[in-house]
Amino acid sequence: MVGVVGEDFPKEYVELFRSKNVDVEGLKTEAGKTFAWHGEYELNMNNRRTLSVELNVFETFQPELPASYRSTPYVLLANIAPSLQSHVLSQIESPRFIIADTMDLWIQIANEDLRKLIKQVDMLILNDSEARDFTGQDNVIRAGHEILKMGPRYVVIKKGEHGAILFGQEGYFLAPAFPLDDVKDPTGAGDCFAGGLIGTLAAENRHDFDTLKKAVIHGTVVASFNVEAFSMGKLKAINSEQIAGRTGKMREYASF
Amino acid sequence: MVGVVGEDFPKEYVELFRSKNVDVEGLKTEAGKTFAWHGEYELNMNNRRTLSVELNVFETFQPELPASYRSTPYVLLANIAPSLQSHVLSQIESPRFIIADTMDLWIQIANEDLRKLIKQVDMLILNDSEARDFTGQDNVIRAGHEILKMGPRYVVIKKGEHGAILFGQEGYFLAPAFPLDDVKDPTGAGDCFAGGLIGTLAAENRHDFDTLKKAVIHGTVVASFNVEAFSMGKLKAINSEQIAGRTGKMREYASF
Repeated sequence: MVGVVGEDFPKEYVELFRSKNVDVEGLKTEAGKTFAWHGEYELNMNNRRTLSVELNVFETFQPELPASYRSTPYVLLANIAPSLQSHVLSQIESPRFIIADTMDLWIQIANEDLRKLIKQVDMLILNDSEARDFTGQDNVIRAGHEILKMGPRYVVIKKGEHGAILFGQEGYFLAPAFPLDDVKDPTGAGDCFAGGLIGTLAAENRHDFDTLKKAVIHGTVVASFNVEAFSMGKLKAINSEQIAGRTGKMREYASF
Repeated sequence: MVGVVGEDFPKEYVELFRSKNVDVEGLKTEAGKTFAWHGEYELNMNNRRTLSVELNVFETFQPELPASYRSTPYVLLANIAPSLQSHVLSQIESPRFIIADTMDLWIQIANEDLRKLIKQVDMLILNDSEARDFTGQDNVIRAGHEILKMGPRYVVIKKGEHGAILFGQEGYFLAPAFPLDDVKDPTGAGDCFAGGLIGTLAAENRHDFDTLKKAVIHGTVVASFNVEAFSMGKLKAINSEQIAGRTGKMREYASF
């Protein structure tokens, strides 16, 4: 984990990461306040509107990797400005598999940087409306193929409650979402998805298409817990047995 | 097949059905014009707007089943007024599995009739926006469970390009749509889906949950061909090998 928080950031969250064996050496605390976002979701939970963004300590953040991070083989470039994602990537010695996440903002204000970045990554993750914006294609399948032509070997288009589609030379993987009858808050679902995905590749130390499918399902399951409560409410309470339980359910619900 | 057309209906379509071994004894031709619908689809191909409906010979149609139809074990009550669907059903001697299709119009103007009908059927098929309207639930998973409580043993909620969800006491089946990069016209996709579904049950002469899953996939594949051209353009040209080919692809794209 590489990131920055302000002095107001609750210590208990850093402790939570430590208790889950997350290496927080790359997490800096700077004078000032933590980045904050406020938004509103529509009833369908897929569309959201930003009400306010305060960059705070994030405004001048230049991610520098601790020496121990530089040999990391599996890299997730989480959603920040593409130029910063490139800066992080340049510090990694010999990455084996690189995933970049992005969002509508960078498609609009840093399109060239984003196009440069994705030539260097193995997988781009974005949601369906972003894929449409990025390519100008209304058809999501066509949008996925167009992004593949821009450089990355794989593309994952997320569709919220409708699941996700993995695109590659090997074909497609059409992953459903885990069925939930009570979605409380989708904030952070995309981060859980991408984190669960790269986590599977790192744990298995492989990135063939079958492992990528497994990784997409794992990301889906982690995200499904996240959306059931506000903040870390549900996520901090779950264990690997519960994740395995939902993964088994996914297999049951998707097989024929 | 039970239905009515006007004198303007092209004979070649009736011959097409005959050439595919569809029994057209129940298809009547009456003096006047055939039912006609004109509509417009939004870019996402999921939302449509009716521009005009002419009932024509359909206005006074009372479906009467030929004697040879009355012992049919597998029944699809295609999308007409629920009172007419009930009238058809009352003529079947000992149905083994009954599916009813419906649409937003009947949910709005014949809600009580529809609620009565679905107590007598094994499965209701409707799309996601209709399921929301019918139950008042924004969450599709919750909507499916509410409809199950109204009587049918199974519910299928169709989500267009996002696939379909089968609900039953046995759990869920989360079926993806077949990935297409060029959708020409979704008109009739729902009928193809429901027809393909009941066709599988009739061909296999069983309706356990695994067969229902297979049937949902078959309906999905048939519908995928239909949307690739206007009218019967693609549908009349395909054969069972092409259907089997896409079914195999579906299995490949959905398995993990």
